[in-house]
Amino acid sequence: MYRFITACALVCATGLGLGGAAQAQGTPQVKAAYHVNTDVNTVPAILNNIRNHLAADPKAKIVVVTHGPGINFLLQDAKDGQGREFSGAVSDLTGKGVEFRVCNNTLVTRNISPDRVLMEAKIVPSGVAEVARLQAVEGFAYLKP
Amino acid sequence: MYRFITACALVCATGLGLGGAAQAQGTPQVKAAYHVNTDVNTVPAILNNIRNHLAADPKAKIVVVTHGPGINFLLQDAKDGQGREFSGAVSDLTGKGVEFRVCNNTLVTRNISPDRVLMEAKIVPSGVAEVARLQAVEGFAYLKP
Amino acid sequence: MYRFITACALVCATGLGLGGAAQAQGTPQVKAAYHVNTDVNTVPAILNNIRNHLAADPKAKIVVVTHGPGINFLLQDAKDGQGREFSGAVSDLTGKGVEFRVCNNTLVTRNISPDRVLMEAKIVPSGVAEVARLQAVEGFAYLKP
Repeated sequence: MYRFITACALVCATGLGLGGAAQAQGTPQVKAAYHVNTDVNTVPAILNNIRNHLAADPKAKIVVVTHGPGINFLLQDAKDGQGREFSGAVSDLTGKGVEFRVCNNTLVTRNISPDRVLMEAKIVPSGVAEVARLQAVEGFAYLKP
Repeated sequence: MYRFITACALVCATGLGLGGAAQAQGTPQVKAAYHVNTDVNTVPAILNNIRNHLAADPKAKIVVVTHGPGINFLLQDAKDGQGREFSGAVSDLTGKGVEFRVCNNTLVTRNISPDRVLMEAKIVPSGVAEVARLQAVEGFAYLKP
Repeated sequence: MYRFITACALVCATGLGLGGAAQAQGTPQVKAAYHVNTDVNTVPAILNNIRNHLAADPKAKIVVVTHGPGINFLLQDAKDGQGREFSGAVSDLTGKGVEFRVCNNTLVTRNISPDRVLMEAKIVPSGVAEVARLQAVEGFAYLKP
């Protein structure tokens, strides 16, 4: 009988733990999806936002989801207004755990070969569906920079 | 005694189920609020985003909440830059389960009769309060397209 | 034995309560983070959005997080396009429970003394990290007005 009660108590405790998990953790990892659908001229400031985010919260998990003109900085040879390639900055941030995702609908609509996408970036079927999925299924916060 | 323990175990299991529901469901329905407060020139791309979203995730529930200039495409006879009426596209998307909501504060401030709003759209007291409510109370993800 | 079972039932009930808390509350307080990184010309409409939000949902908790050009209206003597100072409107909204936060990274980068920030606003290390933290840790909804 005691074994039954002990087992039940364990299940209770587990239920309690799951129910209160978000509240009970001292410093849970913050996960944030950056939604980018604006052209290269807006991207240096966005990458700077991400660097500042990581400086303030080094444990944060950041995923940058791009579609429309937002994918442009993740194409090979893409440059900012000062003629500097984005690939170095993207590679640096990838090394810090940031992930970059590119919308396949945009590639198809604009007839861009997947070969032109930087190897650090991952292609997803739909940028907007990915932004929603990260929030709804994986618990990501959202930022439109 | 066994009945007591069984009852307790059932309550435990129920507690566990509720606590872990978000994590445990295999493929929960993703709900997404699209926040639109920009004028008609931005809307064809937004409606295309929604079509792509549904193509990638046909089970997704999408609610478009509009205020300010964002309500304009939901007024009768509203046209895009090529002179095409929005009503057909709105009707098509409504048929696929998309909902459209219009901010009553905007109608009042701009002195627009509710009669001018497309019948597919629902009027809500405040667009911004609705966007927040959908996230906080109904578990919607957020997108600013 | 009954005491053991009663204790277990209590733990069960507690677990159940925690697990279902978000669903069970009749009208939970909605918390909303407004993310502002645009200059003063956009701010009168944003403050109006917040007033409308509170009119529709007087219990809502609203926190305005600013960075980049978004901090400008929270500096002393900042004026809108009609030459009206923002400080009165900020003070009014603060009196209704709205909080304003300013990104310290922006202050440092732009070499702005913290003394110039309105006393109603609180300085946070990073605006973007704060926006993500409010959502992930404190359960805030997100709005990009």
